[in-house]
Order: sequence, then structure tokens, then C-alpha cells
Amino acid sequence: MGFMHNPEASTQSTLKARAVILDTTHSHNARLRAVPIDAVHLSDDFWQPRRERNRDVTLISQFEKCRLNGYFDNFNRAAGIKDIAFQGLHWNDSDVYKWLEAAAWSMAQPGAGDELQAMVEQVVVQIEAMQQADGNLHSYFLFDKAEQRFTWLENSHELYCVGHFIQAAVAHFRSTGQERLLQVARRAGDFLHRTFGPAENQLPLTDGHQEIEMALIELARATGEGRYLETARFFVDVRARGGVKPIPQLDHLGLAYHQSHRPLEEQSEAVGHAVRAMYYYCAGADLTLEGDDQFAPAMKRLWHDVTTRKMHITGGLGARHDGEAFGAAYELPNASTYCETCAAIGLVMWAHRMLLLTGEAGYADVMERALYNGVLSGLSLDGTEYFYVNPLENDGKHRRSQWFGCACCPPNVARLLAQLPGYFYSTSHNAIWLHLYAQCTTTVELQDEQRVTLNLQTQYPWQGEISLAIEEISGQSTFALHLRVPNWCANATVEINGEAHTYNRQNGYCVIAREWHNGDKVLLHLPMPAQRVEAHPDVAEDRGCVALQRGPLVYCVEACDQQHDLREITLPATSPLQEQWRAELLGGVMTITAEAWKSGSIDEWQNTLYRPVRSTSGQTVLMTAIPYFAWANREVGAMRVWIPQATSCAACHKNRYHGS
Amino acid sequence: MGFMHNPEASTQSTLKARAVILDTTHSHNARLRAVPIDAVHLSDDFWQPRRERNRDVTLISQFEKCRLNGYFDNFNRAAGIKDIAFQGLHWNDSDVYKWLEAAAWSMAQPGAGDELQAMVEQVVVQIEAMQQADGNLHSYFLFDKAEQRFTWLENSHELYCVGHFIQAAVAHFRSTGQERLLQVARRAGDFLHRTFGPAENQLPLTDGHQEIEMALIELARATGEGRYLETARFFVDVRARGGVKPIPQLDHLGLAYHQSHRPLEEQSEAVGHAVRAMYYYCAGADLTLEGDDQFAPAMKRLWHDVTTRKMHITGGLGARHDGEAFGAAYELPNASTYCETCAAIGLVMWAHRMLLLTGEAGYADVMERALYNGVLSGLSLDGTEYFYVNPLENDGKHRRSQWFGCACCPPNVARLLAQLPGYFYSTSHNAIWLHLYAQCTTTVELQDEQRVTLNLQTQYPWQGEISLAIEEISGQSTFALHLRVPNWCANATVEINGEAHTYNRQNGYCVIAREWHNGDKVLLHLPMPAQRVEAHPDVAEDRGCVALQRGPLVYCVEACDQQHDLREITLPATSPLQEQWRAELLGGVMTITAEAWKSGSIDEWQNTLYRPVRSTSGQTVLMTAIPYFAWANREVGAMRVWIPQATSCAACHKNRYHGS
Repeated sequence: MGFMHNPEASTQSTLKARAVILDTTHSHNARLRAVPIDAVHLSDDFWQPRRERNRDVTLISQFEKCRLNGYFDNFNRAAGIKDIAFQGLHWNDSDVYKWLEAAAWSMAQPGAGDELQAMVEQVVVQIEAMQQADGNLHSYFLFDKAEQRFTWLENSHELYCVGHFIQAAVAHFRSTGQERLLQVARRAGDFLHRTFGPAENQLPLTDGHQEIEMALIELARATGEGRYLETARFFVDVRARGGVKPIPQLDHLGLAYHQSHRPLEEQSEAVGHAVRAMYYYCAGADLTLEGDDQFAPAMKRLWHDVTTRKMHITGGLGARHDGEAFGAAYELPNASTYCETCAAIGLVMWAHRMLLLTGEAGYADVMERALYNGVLSGLSLDGTEYFYVNPLENDGKHRRSQWFGCACCPPNVARLLAQLPGYFYSTSHNAIWLHLYAQCTTTVELQDEQRVTLNLQTQYPWQGEISLAIEEISGQSTFALHLRVPNWCANATVEINGEAHTYNRQNGYCVIAREWHNGDKVLLHLPMPAQRVEAHPDVAEDRGCVALQRGPLVYCVEACDQQHDLREITLPATSPLQEQWRAELLGGVMTITAEAWKSGSIDEWQNTLYRPVRSTSGQTVLMTAIPYFAWANREVGAMRVWIPQATSCAACHKNRYHGS
Repeated sequence: MGFMHNPEASTQSTLKARAVILDTTHSHNARLRAVPIDAVHLSDDFWQPRRERNRDVTLISQFEKCRLNGYFDNFNRAAGIKDIAFQGLHWNDSDVYKWLEAAAWSMAQPGAGDELQAMVEQVVVQIEAMQQADGNLHSYFLFDKAEQRFTWLENSHELYCVGHFIQAAVAHFRSTGQERLLQVARRAGDFLHRTFGPAENQLPLTDGHQEIEMALIELARATGEGRYLETARFFVDVRARGGVKPIPQLDHLGLAYHQSHRPLEEQSEAVGHAVRAMYYYCAGADLTLEGDDQFAPAMKRLWHDVTTRKMHITGGLGARHDGEAFGAAYELPNASTYCETCAAIGLVMWAHRMLLLTGEAGYADVMERALYNGVLSGLSLDGTEYFYVNPLENDGKHRRSQWFGCACCPPNVARLLAQLPGYFYSTSHNAIWLHLYAQCTTTVELQDEQRVTLNLQTQYPWQGEISLAIEEISGQSTFALHLRVPNWCANATVEINGEAHTYNRQNGYCVIAREWHNGDKVLLHLPMPAQRVEAHPDVAEDRGCVALQRGPLVYCVEACDQQHDLREITLPATSPLQEQWRAELLGGVMTITAEAWKSGSIDEWQNTLYRPVRSTSGQTVLMTAIPYFAWANREVGAMRVWIPQATSCAACHKNRYHGS
């Protein structure tokens, strides 16, 4: 199946800018279409303050970091404006592009200040100025390094950088309607289309870090030009067919490091660098959306492998620091895991594509898990500091940083927050799909100019009551609502206009197909009691432990909330979990408290690695858990997600928790 | 402090051959002296059958493996006898040398067959023939490779091979009294002494894999020639002072991989390749024994780091496959650990040296732990198959092999078994030290021609009753017995001639100093109930788990002894541990059985990585544990040392194990 050429999009002047993250309108295999970011107006207390902080604080401070670290100087150097040395890493261009994409999406809704707009304008001008005559864009492989262009693609990140630029250009076009950057992106895409390919006068190579693939596919979607898709497909095809060499410094990891060990369609196990893997799987999902059915089975196999064997409860991916890579099946260590913020973001992106492909809620479940936990932990509450690595247990020494030499994560978090409303809803032929829940008003366009405005009232993720009002319908009034019932929710109930509704559940969605009227109300009740979660017995470090989860939020215990060393505390299986809203804490969080069991002291272990189990006395102590995303925002101290359960005698000898 | 030159040993003809592993007779800082192998006559059911199998089966089959893999052809090629290509790895010489050392020690006691003796003779002749005119010995760096000699020592193993040869030569001399090989070793040692050193015409380099150091020190002890010690000291000193480069293929591990990141005397943390580390620490301990006091604090620090933070309960070392290396503190994964057999052997060797240095039982405790568990697991019960890697948990796919391309472990196990009686006893000025226990008759020489013959009756390690009879005393009859009270034993008692004796415990030894008479009997009772052991709370994978230990033996549960998948079983804290002698099982073992708790089925986890904890019913099932060393000798199946404990409700809801 080839790309479905969009006849409307054949000339630039007729291009229609819609602020969608992914435009699957003409994608052959897409079950769902994205809803534009600017169609969703959040008014909630969870995401909207974060999105405003992202726009007004995070992006402003990130621009300053880019400036201070010489990224813009590199652009001016490339443009011939400044005669100075290149600064930083040779892929820092990509950080600017990701920042630009985040800023561009932030402008899709009202509220972006003049300062941000001026920053965007400056960067756009710089990019236009630095583009080379042949269409290529890269600030490093110029002048004395020009000879090196495309000579060590396995680690040069040249196409990776262009890819992030193209995504930024598409975002800028879709968000602002301006085609300036899209023109630059077309020239860059055309250059790649000419330069890379199977012909004799082309380079049969690809980039060591995937990214260009999904960027070119989106450029094809945005412009209707199938040649960009063709080049993207070439990059995927050539990858394991000699298109990329192992990275010499990572010789011990081989081709699997960048997923080049086997053609994508033949892969079944997630291996190597987790972010590269996610971006590659996004490309595979995108190609599947566009009709390349040969990738579909591999996408399912890889999804199954990642989400049933290699994903932390936070949605964090990449168990190993060595290679920032996936471990073996069930290798999910808590303290020593890597869980790069970008990998969790990549999982959100992949899940979103799989969701658009299938309409199956399981993908949205994972998307939500990663978003609320493994992604959000990457950002400090004040929006200015970042985790690169997101352990599930730590002695407290791991703290967020204001920036990194390799600063991929900060603008990636910013980009996701800027895009966020675009992940909430989708549409299909005659249906509106609600994947994620937050208080908002949304106007959705279905087929035949049918428009529906929905008002959603909820305190999600803190409460599971979701009140949905059909505010206005124009056009056909018969359509279906697909309301996702999260997999963490055991007893969802629905009322329509005050009456209980026995719903039909399809692929994880409560489907209500009927004629709707203005003012109709749907109440979706998703009970979210705090619950203990256990991991597969093959996850060695989680044996005998539980994690606490409430709704989509995974919890952790942080030292500053406890009276005792975390290592002294175990949780009896029958100790009730209490919930408490703490408005003053960490920007307002629901805490979970429980009576825990403390026996012995960590001090007794000094100079001891193994000792006979002693029958010890103990005491009941209060344990307080907070959402995982909020840890490391206060004083330094240990944290853990997985809490050891009390073993029988500690609790039972006191005969406290048992009726007998 | 310099080497104490042994005046008796200054000419070859007066050299006295005593079959001691280490000759600390003249070592300045030695508290203890080794007892010769041939002074200890084992008659037990545990070690002696293993030692006979080692001599009669293992060594014969290993010789054949060496032959089949071309190792002897390489020797003949080097000697100019065969004009063929080099075969195998460029350090395979060392496997022959380790085999030769094992065979040599095996000849220290009666019983070695003609076949083994002929094999030894063949190898001795080959070695004599292959030694180069300058004294060097290596079968690879010759002919077209001669130019490469000493050009990539970081990974060539050239001095490592010579080191193993020297150890074999010393063993051959001490065991047989023949000086043939010792002459070859002197020439090799003299060559190294001339070639390596700080002078302008010398090479300021050392080997990437430590081994030559302790070999040269023992050669100095055996010959009384201080120059070998001087060269050994040079190799230690130059190591972190530019003496060795990182290994290019292991670039990511840097100098720490082979402990060259910092001078030995400044090291505090065990890092890098575990076997290299052990051999290096042996050299440090040997230099300390010889009077180089500057290494003593580092030896204590490193010992503390290894044994309180980086040692598995089996005595296994090296948590990481990557680099076969130590992990961080408390990084002790069970399934994914490395625990090379050679590393546990190296720990025995290091512990033995530290023991001779200090006379502190803590070193013997670790020596015993490694010997009975992490070393012995490396060998199949039939003596023909080997583990290179010794995990503490496995799905059953890990099985022993008959040989390896890099075959360091098989002859290393054989060598240790051949040496074994030499580790049991030591002497000091007027005392006999018993470190390890097995049924045997031993004649010990103290100072001034004082000789004592001891007869020891015991079923150790299966029973803790040790009956020691003073069979014969010649010379002074006042001396002390130092009987080690193992750290796993809580309530050791002593009787002398049938009367309870309140003993004086010094450094972990029950010390009985008195006048002894022929026929005196000491009964040492070391109660060894099966016990649960727990690990430091920072060992993530062992949280909520217990290991079972009885006496020196660590136990494991193996699938073929259970009725249920190991992952379904947890052990209630109060479930009694039952012991049963099973003569027919695994060559005769004491099993530990207990009522375990089974709730749920592993099948319920299919396609599930996390799930809410359910209140499940369950059932009591019998669980049977066997000694860890004996696993993987029957049908393929999962194994684990660390057993999850039942969490309170599984057991308590049944109200079965509790009086309340």
C-alpha cells in the first residue's frame, strides 16, 4: 500500500493548517484521526497550570540555556554571520529544534507572550539563514568539517537533527498557518530525497539515531508529497541492510544498540538504546498507518515485548545505563534502572500512533501510565529542572538539573506538554473518542461538517468522576462516544442524563452510540481507590513488594515524609490505605498513608552483608506516599516506589492486623 | 621491609621441597605457616571422593581436552617440532599450566596413576623444549608474531601465562622434589627480571591480567631468590603508573577494568574484572606477608568492601557480565550475576593469604563459604563438566559445559581440589590452627622438631560434631590448638577428654593451650541447624527473601524437587525447617524441607506485567532444598537460592502457622 496522496495538498497555497500532532486524515490504515490541539481548551488544575508554566517559564528558561550554551551562535556561525568555533555537542541543533517545536505548539492556543513569540521569530530567521544551498541543515558539518558530512552517520546525528527540524517546521506551520519554515523543511526533505536512496548516485545509508523517519512521514502528511514518505521508508528499509555501522565507542553493544541488527519487520524483542527504539517503532507505526502492512505484526510483537516484559510501572523504559538500553525480559531494577525521560516520551508517541491505528484502549492505558509517571517525573514542579534518568528507587543523591550537555530531555518534556491536548481526543467516522481525561471544553469535527462541543468537568487525576456535557451539536446528531475505561479501574459505571446506563465495552472503551441533544449529560464514574499493585514474579527486585497506585498515578515513599529510614519499613498486606488531599503539599496532591511495620534498625547491619533471620519485635509506624512524579522536589532523601511487604511474623506476632 | 632471604635456599642442591601451597616460613609478616598437602590425609566422604575423582577423572579428561583443542600442538609448534598454525586463544598455554599445577599437587599424595604421571612427564618435556633461548615462555608470540611480543600486554596475557607456568613449576618441585621445571621457571623469572623494570633498558610495563605477581613471589619463596620478589613488586608498582593501557575492546570500562586506575595501596573499592582483582589482591597480600606494609591498609579496605558489599552468599564475586566485573555496592543480582568460578577460587586464595597474615577466623569463614558453595558449584558431580558463570537463580537453561574456548575455570577448580588439604591447617610458633574441618589424619611440625599427629573424626559438612584425637606427640608436649568456630555457628561447645571446657575465643578461634598427651581427645560441637539467612536491606533482589543455610552449605530450591513452579512458592517465616539425609540423592546430601505456601499460579500472569494485589486463597505445599553446589546435575529446571517469604496474609488468613 502506498501513501494516499492528498489532492487538496498538492500546491502550497491550498495547504490547510490544522494544529494536529499527527495528521492521519489520509492514512490508509488509520482507525482514528487526531483532534487539533487548539480544539481542546483545558481548564483543569493539573495540566493547565503545568502547560502555562511550560509556556511562560520552562520555554523561556530553555531558550536562555540554548543561548548560553552557544547553540544559537552555532546557527549564526553556520549562516556565516559569526566567525567563531563550534560549541557543544554536534547534535545540539536538535535541542533548539525541539524547543522550537514546543514553542510552536504553545502558540496554537492563546496566551503565548510577546517574549516567546519574539524568540520563535529569531530562531526561524536563523534557520532560514543557515540552510545550505543544497537544502541541508546542520551547524556542525560545515567549513573544515564539511568533508565529514555523512561519513559517520552511525553517531553523527546529522539526519536526527534534520528530523527534529522538520517536526518543528510542521508544528510551526500547523500552529501558526505560516509556511516559512515548511518551505525550509521541504528543501531539506528534497535534499534528503535526492541524496539518500538505493540508486547508484545516492547514499545507501541512514542515521544511527532514528528520528528522521517519522519526521519525513509527517512532512509527507503535511505537504501531501509522497516522496518524503518514500525516503522515510528507504531509511527504515536500509537500516539493517548495511545502512548503518556499529558505533565504535559502543562496540560491545553492536548493531542491536541502534536496532540495526535485523530488519524492523522481523524484530520481536525490544533491544538497544530505548529512545532510538521508541522513535524507530514510531516510524514503524507511522508506516503501518500509511499502509505498509508488513510492519504491523512486528509492531504488535514489539509492543507486547515492551509492555509485558520491559516496562517499569511508571512507563519508564531502558533498564540499563550501559547503552541507555533495554535489558532482558523482566530485567527491571529499581535503583539502577535508566528510564530516560525521552524514552517515556517516546513511549507516549508510539502508544499514540498505535492507538490511532487500532482504536484499542490498551495503547491509551500505557500512554497515560507513561505520561503521568515516567514523563512527568522528568520535570521539577517549578518547571526549570529536569531528570534525564528516572529511577524507581534512590538514596536521594539523584536530583534534577537545570540543563545537560546532551540536553535532549528538557525540550522533549516541553514539547510533550505543549502538544498535550492533542493526545486527549480522537475521532473516527462517526465517533468521538476520549482517551485521557481532564477538565476542558472541546469542539470536535466529525465527517460532513458535523461539529460537537463537549464540556468535561472532572478533578481527574485526583478523582474519578467525569461529567461530560454535550454543549452544542451542529449537523448530524447521531454519533458515538467512546469513553476509555482505564485498565486500572475495576468498576466503572455510566449514567446518561441521570440514569444508569449499562454500557457496551469495546476494545476498552465504553461506547455510547445514539442520537444526542444539546445539554445531554454523561457521567462516567471511574472508582480510583488507592491500591496495591504487584509485579510479575520474574521481576526479581519487586518480589515480595507492592507499589501503590491510585487512578493513573503511581506513588512512592520519600524519606522526608517518614519518621524512619525507608529500609526499616515494610507494609503489612492488610494495612488499610488512607487517602488525604493535601492542598499545601507539592502543589496539591492526594497522599496515601498506611500503618507500616518497623522492625529492627538499619544500623544493626553495619559491616554485615548476611545474617541469620532473627525473630524481632517491632512497632507500627505511619507511612506516607506521594505521587512518584513529585519526588525530589523537597529536601534530599531516599525514595522508593516498590515497598517490601511485611513477612508473616513481623506483623502476625503482634497479632495486630488479623481478626484471628 | 625487604624479602627475608632464606640462607638454606641459596643453592639449588640444598633446596628443601615441602608440598605447601604458600611457603610463608620466612615471610616477615606471616602469623601462620601453611601445612604441607602431604601431611594431611583425608578420609572423609565429602572431599576425598571428590579429590580422587579430580585426580582420576577430571584431570585425565582435561588433558584430553587440551590435546583436542591443540594446546599441546601449540607447544610443539613453539618448540619447532611441528610446523602448523597456532590454535585457539593466545592465552591457552595458561590452561595447560594450571592443569599441570593441579596434576603436580595431585602427586603430593599417593594414588596418582601411571597415566597421570605420564601426562605430566610429557608436558614437562614439552615445556623444556619450548622455552626460548632468552628464557621466555609463550607459544603464541613467536615466528611471525615475535615482533608483537610485549607490544599489547594489556590483553596479550603473556605474563599471565608465564605466571601460571611458574606456579606449576613451583608445585611440581614441591610435590615431587624434582627441580627440572623449577630450573625452567628460574630462567623465565630471570628473563622477566632483566626485561621488565624501571631502568632505561627495561620495559616499564605489566600484564593486563594479574597473575605473574603472586607467581614470582612464590618463586622467590621457593628459591630464596629476592630478585623475583623485586620484579613482582615492580609489576604491582608500575600498574597504575602507566604500566598498562586500557583494553580497546573494553574501552567503556577503562583502566578500572584491570584495577590500573589507582595504585593498589590507594584502592578502597573493588572494581573491574573480578578474577583480575582477586589475583591482584593476592599479590598485595603476598607483598604484605613479605613485609611491604604499605599495602596492608588497602588490603583491609578492599576485603571489607568485597565481603560486606559485593559478595554473594555463595562467595560468588562479579555481579556483572559486562567486564565479568564487580558491580556497585550491594549490586548482587541473582539471575543475572556473573560469579565466575575462577573469581570464587581467587577469593579462596586471597582469603588464605589474609588468614596466614592475620590468624583471624573471619578470613577462613569467607574461604569456607566460597569453597563449599561458589567454587564447588563450578564442577559437576561426575567431575567432567563446569560452570564458568554461577548464578544464584536460573530458569534451568544454564548448564555446565565440558570445556570452554577460554577454559580458565576447569583447571582452576582441579587445581584447588588438588591443593585442598593445604588449606585445612596452619601452624604458628607453638600452635596448630584448624581452619577447615574434614575427617583426616594429619602430622604437623611445629618449631624445634616438635611433631604432632592429629586424628580428626567428623561427618562435616553434614554434621557439626568434630572429634579430635592427639595421636602422637614427639618433642615438646605443650602447645595450643586453635579451632575455628565458624561465624555461622551460634553455640559452639568444647569438651576435653569428656569434660566440658569453657574456651577462650580469640579472633574467632577456640584456643586451647595446654600440655597434651597421646590419646587426648577434644570434642568440638558446632551445632548446625538449618537456618534462614537474610541479606542487607540494600541488596534489592533479596528483600523479603531468605536463603537457607546449614553449616557452611548454602541451599537452593531446584524445580525437580518441587511439585510446583518455583515462582508460585513462598516460605512462611514460621514454617519449621526439617533436615533429612538422602544417601541416594546427588551423591548423598542433607536436604532441607519445609511447608511452603502456594497462592495463585504463574499462568495467571500471562501477558501481565503488573496487576492489583488480590486476596487469594492458597495451599500448603512441601518445598525441598538441596545444597547449592549440587544443582544442575539432574534434569533441566529452574533454581533459586533466595526464596521469597510469605507476606502476612497469605499465611495468616489460613491461620495455620500461628498460635493465636
